[in-house]
Amino acid sequence: MNKPTPEQRDVAPRPAFARWLGTTNDVTRGFLAVGRIPGLINMAGGLPAPELYPAAELAAIARRVIEQHPRDTLGYGPIEGLPELRDALAARFSTPALRLGRDNILITSSGMQGLDLLGKVLLEEGDVIAAQFPTYLGALDAWRPRRPTYRNTVLETPGFDPVSAMTGARFTYSVPNFSNPTGRLVPLSVRQALVDAAHRTGTWLVEDDPYGTLHYDGSPLPRMIELSGRKQPGQTYDGPIVYMGTFSKEIAPGLRIGWVVAAPDMIAALTMAKQGSDMCTSGVTQHIALGALQSGLVERLQPAIVSLYRERRDALCAALAEHLADWFDWEVPVGGMFVWAVARDPALDTDRLLPIAAQAGVCVAPSSVFDSSGQNRCALRLNFTLNPPAALAEGVRRLAAALRKMREEG
Amino acid sequence: MNKPTPEQRDVAPRPAFARWLGTTNDVTRGFLAVGRIPGLINMAGGLPAPELYPAAELAAIARRVIEQHPRDTLGYGPIEGLPELRDALAARFSTPALRLGRDNILITSSGMQGLDLLGKVLLEEGDVIAAQFPTYLGALDAWRPRRPTYRNTVLETPGFDPVSAMTGARFTYSVPNFSNPTGRLVPLSVRQALVDAAHRTGTWLVEDDPYGTLHYDGSPLPRMIELSGRKQPGQTYDGPIVYMGTFSKEIAPGLRIGWVVAAPDMIAALTMAKQGSDMCTSGVTQHIALGALQSGLVERLQPAIVSLYRERRDALCAALAEHLADWFDWEVPVGGMFVWAVARDPALDTDRLLPIAAQAGVCVAPSSVFDSSGQNRCALRLNFTLNPPAALAEGVRRLAAALRKMREEG
Repeated sequence: MNKPTPEQRDVAPRPAFARWLGTTNDVTRGFLAVGRIPGLINMAGGLPAPELYPAAELAAIARRVIEQHPRDTLGYGPIEGLPELRDALAARFSTPALRLGRDNILITSSGMQGLDLLGKVLLEEGDVIAAQFPTYLGALDAWRPRRPTYRNTVLETPGFDPVSAMTGARFTYSVPNFSNPTGRLVPLSVRQALVDAAHRTGTWLVEDDPYGTLHYDGSPLPRMIELSGRKQPGQTYDGPIVYMGTFSKEIAPGLRIGWVVAAPDMIAALTMAKQGSDMCTSGVTQHIALGALQSGLVERLQPAIVSLYRERRDALCAALAEHLADWFDWEVPVGGMFVWAVARDPALDTDRLLPIAAQAGVCVAPSSVFDSSGQNRCALRLNFTLNPPAALAEGVRRLAAALRKMREEG
Repeated sequence: MNKPTPEQRDVAPRPAFARWLGTTNDVTRGFLAVGRIPGLINMAGGLPAPELYPAAELAAIARRVIEQHPRDTLGYGPIEGLPELRDALAARFSTPALRLGRDNILITSSGMQGLDLLGKVLLEEGDVIAAQFPTYLGALDAWRPRRPTYRNTVLETPGFDPVSAMTGARFTYSVPNFSNPTGRLVPLSVRQALVDAAHRTGTWLVEDDPYGTLHYDGSPLPRMIELSGRKQPGQTYDGPIVYMGTFSKEIAPGLRIGWVVAAPDMIAALTMAKQGSDMCTSGVTQHIALGALQSGLVERLQPAIVSLYRERRDALCAALAEHLADWFDWEVPVGGMFVWAVARDPALDTDRLLPIAAQAGVCVAPSSVFDSSGQNRCALRLNFTLNPPAALAEGVRRLAAALRKMREEG
């Protein structure tokens, strides 16, 4: 039976892992580690305020849906998701110009899974992604196993030409509402130009929209998928926009429920990928999300979320103006979860700042992790949703102390 | 703004999807479609008996865990899983010979996700998998996006040499307890030989064990990870076995909770892949599973599950003996969910049988879907867990009618 002799035991070398694992970011691991320092003020992640979770309501909904729908909640469900939840989302995102049916909707186990499935169905090794730059770290993580090439796309560049940006790319990636990490709102003219270019080039245009409901000033702009729908009046949507959303910011991230809205052939391809990824999303969490939508809980929560986050955004920006105006420039974001602070001195290295700031008791996200090449090192992403105003002010004071210390150390 | 002229609108061709999508199996789609025929007896899937779901107990647990642990259930959790659930699983699988700690455990969003993550961390295009043949369809689905090559490994072959089977493979895949699709139990001597070969060659050996608790006759055999642990006495496990399990058969598939038990470096690599796949598994479903474990519910359910499924296995095998003995050979499985029926006439084509059987009102899984090349076409996988004895008998009668019809048609 080929039993090894004792000398042969445990001597075989461990085989190598797949190559993409060699390209993951140490900075990310670093800030996960500093997250464990007691008293640390965490402004690094994109975490909601946990005091907003409607625990009592969700606990009651959870009990009710399992009792009333034991087979739907506890059994295997359709790969594409619970039909009632797909219908509810189709209705939610339909407008006079955008006609959506069940076949336009895929339920995903988190927004992140939508990005992973997209990479699976579109990317071969080396394929080009035209990605809004700087780029959401989680998207870079999701696509790393496919080993793509990035064409950094800066929508603010004067004379930005979306047709050249998209031509030859497998898809374009954008976060038009309060982008992660920059917090920027992509203006209507640029949205329209991106949509026009997607129709013209045939390149898929991903509209990742986890923050769309977190709008603090002014009115929401039309979604790109709606602008695309206007080009196909009276038809069920079949255009090139792939819209992605999540309940993580509207209900609770612990449900891990997201969705994709897209042309039926894209939904069918993503469904094949989901079959081999997790077969289907939990019926328990899908039914809780459906219950929260249908009972009006999601709508009722919205004003409290927006008002709490608006106050925190204002507190963070006031503290930045008081303590960091000499060091950084930033725009006050009209929505979302982040302020993007760009160093006035381009030689300031925010990767170097990270451990010094952690020692001072504050954790922030350095710009390098939002760049597939890791080279953009002179900005910071600051989250304002997790901490109350006093903690945000203290976090900024600690950051200022860390910057002074770094300057003294030279 | 590069607005397209009307003639340019919607004319760009849709770009192609990734190549692996061209290799998916039409038979699978076909039997999903026939699943909608009313009155059809479904013996194709691997579905548990829904009347066994402990809905009232799980509903109460769900409510309690959300109320008592709102941040753990509703917030983002650690990528690796809820620490208490990891600890509970480490304790559950530890034996005197196998020492496991939290770092040996990853919680996954279903057993399927474990297979997907494994493909991500180990496979480059064209890499060889030495897979127990015939091979679980879901594993073929999970790895298809990585475009591997299969070395079909038939453990029953006289003189089977695991060292040559494993040499040069990125990993070996096996389902030692009541394999899907064959229902076979891999004997102790073969388990030991596989483990010895894994230690000798350094090749990872995947022990996929969704059915291990569904044991109807005799005593369970030692797990391969335990046999491997015996080679490292007194050490925290660091060997080449990657053990995978799921709560789908013990509690309910709708929780979508699985786990991987492996060496800490493998768990760390899988965690990097999970970060970009779904960030973390739902805290709601993890806490429900933990509650079901800690309250003793899992243990209390076990005898009822085993006794119901044993009765159904016996009913299916009796019906097969009565109606199909001229057509097929099979072994009575000592556990699991399936009987594997091999046609006595090697020219019988079970892909051809599938639509005729569906017309006769019964759905079964043809052998081709368990072969990465689709060539093995003379066997059937019959599930016995979903349907009560009378339905199983009726399903077999319909299958016999379909076989006669196929013979008449020539």
